[in-house]
Amino acid sequence: MDAVSSVSPVWPHGSAGDAGGAEPDGAVEPAASDVSVASAASRFAHAAWSGIAEPGDATAGRLVAALGSAAALECVVARQSPATILGLARDAGAAVGTAGEVEAALERWRPRLTTSTVLTSMRQAERCGARLIVPTDHEWPEGFEGLGPHQPVALWARGRPDAVLGLRSAIAVVGARAASGYGEHMAMELSAGLADRGFGIVSGAAYGIDGMAHRSALASSGQTFAFLAGGVDRFYPTGHDALLTRIAEVGVVLSELPCGSAPTKWRFLQRNRLIAAAALATVVVEAGVRSGSLNTAAHAAALGRPLGAVPGPVTSPSSAGCHRLLREFDAVCVTTPDEVVQLVGEVQRASPQPVLRGLEAPPSTQKRRPAEQVRVLDALGRRAPRSVDEVARRAGLGVAAVQSVLGALGLEGAVEEQHGGWRSVTSR
Amino acid sequence: MDAVSSVSPVWPHGSAGDAGGAEPDGAVEPAASDVSVASAASRFAHAAWSGIAEPGDATAGRLVAALGSAAALECVVARQSPATILGLARDAGAAVGTAGEVEAALERWRPRLTTSTVLTSMRQAERCGARLIVPTDHEWPEGFEGLGPHQPVALWARGRPDAVLGLRSAIAVVGARAASGYGEHMAMELSAGLADRGFGIVSGAAYGIDGMAHRSALASSGQTFAFLAGGVDRFYPTGHDALLTRIAEVGVVLSELPCGSAPTKWRFLQRNRLIAAAALATVVVEAGVRSGSLNTAAHAAALGRPLGAVPGPVTSPSSAGCHRLLREFDAVCVTTPDEVVQLVGEVQRASPQPVLRGLEAPPSTQKRRPAEQVRVLDALGRRAPRSVDEVARRAGLGVAAVQSVLGALGLEGAVEEQHGGWRSVTSR
Repeated sequence: MDAVSSVSPVWPHGSAGDAGGAEPDGAVEPAASDVSVASAASRFAHAAWSGIAEPGDATAGRLVAALGSAAALECVVARQSPATILGLARDAGAAVGTAGEVEAALERWRPRLTTSTVLTSMRQAERCGARLIVPTDHEWPEGFEGLGPHQPVALWARGRPDAVLGLRSAIAVVGARAASGYGEHMAMELSAGLADRGFGIVSGAAYGIDGMAHRSALASSGQTFAFLAGGVDRFYPTGHDALLTRIAEVGVVLSELPCGSAPTKWRFLQRNRLIAAAALATVVVEAGVRSGSLNTAAHAAALGRPLGAVPGPVTSPSSAGCHRLLREFDAVCVTTPDEVVQLVGEVQRASPQPVLRGLEAPPSTQKRRPAEQVRVLDALGRRAPRSVDEVARRAGLGVAAVQSVLGALGLEGAVEEQHGGWRSVTSR
Repeated sequence: MDAVSSVSPVWPHGSAGDAGGAEPDGAVEPAASDVSVASAASRFAHAAWSGIAEPGDATAGRLVAALGSAAALECVVARQSPATILGLARDAGAAVGTAGEVEAALERWRPRLTTSTVLTSMRQAERCGARLIVPTDHEWPEGFEGLGPHQPVALWARGRPDAVLGLRSAIAVVGARAASGYGEHMAMELSAGLADRGFGIVSGAAYGIDGMAHRSALASSGQTFAFLAGGVDRFYPTGHDALLTRIAEVGVVLSELPCGSAPTKWRFLQRNRLIAAAALATVVVEAGVRSGSLNTAAHAAALGRPLGAVPGPVTSPSSAGCHRLLREFDAVCVTTPDEVVQLVGEVQRASPQPVLRGLEAPPSTQKRRPAEQVRVLDALGRRAPRSVDEVARRAGLGVAAVQSVLGALGLEGAVEEQHGGWRSVTSR
């Protein structure tokens, strides 16, 4: 395994992380000062962590927060024991988790700890003009603080410098891919109206409502922000390549995953938390009863952010999710841009609503899989079998965990072993 | 003035009040016993009061509650002074109001105190098979209690004996006259579904949503209840004559006004309180921003009854009132019959919501008139002028009050004096 031998302080200036990556406010600029060397090492480590830990990995979040990204990475590279790592964290006055949790985390992280992957993604970021934003940068979205240990370790951004600051007055407009003409009309009306009133539009660049929300903001010369579930070097969905290119010109395309990362089901769900956390409020325009937008809504509510839902005909399945948000989850009924603006002003609603936990699991006849199964299935192909090590690396899980999950999935016939590797045999 | 000279204990048996008018539970049947004489006198007085006081007259409600309908009527007939009346009420342990309020009430009531009118309405009731129900009857709707002094003094009912008892498991389904195809579809779905689940449907027999709600209940062999704003002898609207005839066959057509009474704007608003009070819950299917259904919704909420609103396309003005109920007045979003049933079960919502006061005045570009102006305009014709006495009698207001209101309306040009009488000159 081509492990990073040590955290390189000679991370080349002029590479991706430097190309627009603003230094923390008040930091002294380059020269060979200790500050800049430490900063460069820290940025390199943040970049590495964004590829090592899957989005939302709380243990990674706590460890990086406790020791700093570079020292945290050094622990993994140097194969420190969980006890040693917990001791270091304790000395820093922080709790990272139990020894078992750290052990499991190390098993998840180590298969991904290769210099080549990190450097490849950095080179690709440089090539497509993506820059790294870390939590200490002034551009870092303020709204992410509510995510606690689930905050991303880094963000990759394609767009104009400082445009990310516009997130501080942006509203998420999200909804179903399978939108109706009515839903697209409402997404357009609301987004254009909000853009006219000076608000940015945050969304997920998907087909349907998301795409219409971005487009309307662009058409109104407003700012818009697209959070992707994969690397920002490969725009997804490909049919929105031109749209995303345009967003990168006047707004920002963002991802917590390094360049080269594929979007997976797990990453889509985690991406939704970033949309909800970055925006002042979230509005669901159309959503079927099992739409991913309900997941975004659940994150918004769990974070105590205002949540709006656009009503629609009861006879339209595309509005059923919105009606559910109104009925069961205390979403506010919004019908005009002004009503959305009022939503942002409703400070009294800004307390977390614990009832929303259930929303992450919309009622469905389809069986809900545990998170680890989702991630393992994401990592498997349907043709070529993959080794357990390979699956572990792709899924961001430990080898032992992957073996156990594969066993369970094998029992139900969802995966099968072939030529010493594994492939999936069912649709998810 | 052909005033009732005394409360007649010789109220003829076999007249309207007797034609199906059930005695209170356990009351001994006729004979010339004191009980039946007193009861007959009381029923006659209730019938008289239903024509003397306009719907919702709290002073009348308090006086009848304090002294009984017959003694209360006797006070008016005998031209007792306010001081004497207040003294009698005090002796009965009740507060009726200030001397000024009683004085004003007497001025409203006296112009209407004619034996002929009462007897005419009773004869007409007998002719059309309407019977009188008074608060002590076992049929009296339980839900009316929440109305306090605004409770009606009597109900006139056309329908099968005891069918009124079905109101105890009935739900109000109301909405705009100018309903859309979508609204009518939803009214049908909900009413039919509720009828299938054993609930009666209460509504106002208007065109649009109301009519569809009644029809669907009938089509599902359910029970249905129509509250009218005028007498039950003349079905209104006339286009619903056949529908109301059918409702009277299997359900009940109800009014607090005696036969011969015309529906007026004021009476429509007061009728709405009966719908909201009689039903377990109120569902608004479609309503424009100024729909009368919002008035029914306001009554339901003020009474602490569960209130549901059916969402619709934001692009449809017919749903704007429903969205307003969802946004501002905490109505529950209902989309299926089962969700309406859940509404009834929501006991925790059954506390009065004081915020709803504003709902009686939906925002509108049209000027809102004070209640007394509405009643005076209701009482004026646009062709033949009417004397102040005549207007006072029709409006159920005192002569002095009518003069003052006519003065104000005259200043704005809404009414004009002609040949010593008054007529209205503008549309309302």
